[in-house]
Amino acid sequence: MPDTQPPQTTGPDAAAAYEPTGRTVPTRSRERAAYDREQIHSILDEAYVCHLGFVRDGAPVVLPTLFGRVGERLYVHGSTGSRPLRTAGGSSDGLAVCLTVTHVDGLVLARSAFHHSLNYRSVVVHGIAHAVTDPEERRTALDAIVEQVVPGRSQDSRPADEKELAATAVLRLDLREVSAKVRTGGPNDDPEDLELPHWTGVVPLTRGFAAPVPAADLDPAIAVPDYLKAL
Amino acid sequence: MPDTQPPQTTGPDAAAAYEPTGRTVPTRSRERAAYDREQIHSILDEAYVCHLGFVRDGAPVVLPTLFGRVGERLYVHGSTGSRPLRTAGGSSDGLAVCLTVTHVDGLVLARSAFHHSLNYRSVVVHGIAHAVTDPEERRTALDAIVEQVVPGRSQDSRPADEKELAATAVLRLDLREVSAKVRTGGPNDDPEDLELPHWTGVVPLTRGFAAPVPAADLDPAIAVPDYLKAL
Repeated sequence: MPDTQPPQTTGPDAAAAYEPTGRTVPTRSRERAAYDREQIHSILDEAYVCHLGFVRDGAPVVLPTLFGRVGERLYVHGSTGSRPLRTAGGSSDGLAVCLTVTHVDGLVLARSAFHHSLNYRSVVVHGIAHAVTDPEERRTALDAIVEQVVPGRSQDSRPADEKELAATAVLRLDLREVSAKVRTGGPNDDPEDLELPHWTGVVPLTRGFAAPVPAADLDPAIAVPDYLKAL
Repeated sequence: MPDTQPPQTTGPDAAAAYEPTGRTVPTRSRERAAYDREQIHSILDEAYVCHLGFVRDGAPVVLPTLFGRVGERLYVHGSTGSRPLRTAGGSSDGLAVCLTVTHVDGLVLARSAFHHSLNYRSVVVHGIAHAVTDPEERRTALDAIVEQVVPGRSQDSRPADEKELAATAVLRLDLREVSAKVRTGGPNDDPEDLELPHWTGVVPLTRGFAAPVPAADLDPAIAVPDYLKAL
């Protein structure tokens, strides 16, 4: 476990923005970089998966995985037999990771191929993930991961029992070295292209939910809960 | 440039599946792993961004980026000044990368917190990315990246000119060490949980497009093209 204090999450000392570092200042499109804490939390909270990067045998590995946020801490979990969790759990130094979340909001069609783009919101977190051993924090983390799937759900499901807890590794990554990158708005064509005969603009992407599909073995007397209707 | 031949993409010698390797056989949930070439192409082709992982100063970096596919080759592009492209371009050894694409198809709500999951389709590609220097291949790659955003669009936009081509680095990653992971269906609750009073099932996620938003400076005489109406 790290002996550092967790980052300040509330109160007058909580800065409104993360401090940029060498790793979180992009080499290009710097105007799209953002460090606002509230905005970054919001991008993270809207995601169902993150892409977790780590190094194995000198090579990068990027795996999609569930995650949860509690204040300034992110949690991921997995089988105690899974590779990243085994690596981090087996070392008091933890595991160097990069955790990235991306939402694609629109297709940006410029007149020139060169200026085609996407509207998107992404967050990149750099840091060292550490195995969580404290039982209370482990339970909090697992609840947060369920809440990330559906807010309200952790109170309406059976919590992990001792056997399940023993089979589950939990990693914590503190939100310290964090940045967002956001593109919005229309295409940025060059002035000399404005008369070209191509349609130009944005196709917004939408995300929605279809009607919940009950499990085949669900007791028909159990109605769809309000927290699902609210989606 | 690598001196190896590109993988076979068509004809009687093209295997229907990628060969599993130590890196593409998961340590758990092996029943979800898939190597079918057609299925993997389809998962890739449906995505707007990939998450590209590489190692910088010994630490992992994961960035969302556009990409395109041409047969058994993936292409990513970027400014010649961007970090991964500079790293790969500056070395004849190329850049070790892991390129991952994920679609989230549904929220899986089990009766137990432990069995909560997502329905998803992901593809993970391991390999060495090489800078593309051949002018013809560079143009093909850039077209493919535009086609990944909207099929049909590369024929209805101004191709990159010499100045834009000079400012753009293109990396190629061959599809050799590739796997998909797919989860479908309902929750997998344990038999002893079946009588619990919690709603259980799947909430399907949907993706759609809103009406195209023309750029403010678009000539109103230019109609929305058919390839956008087809989305």
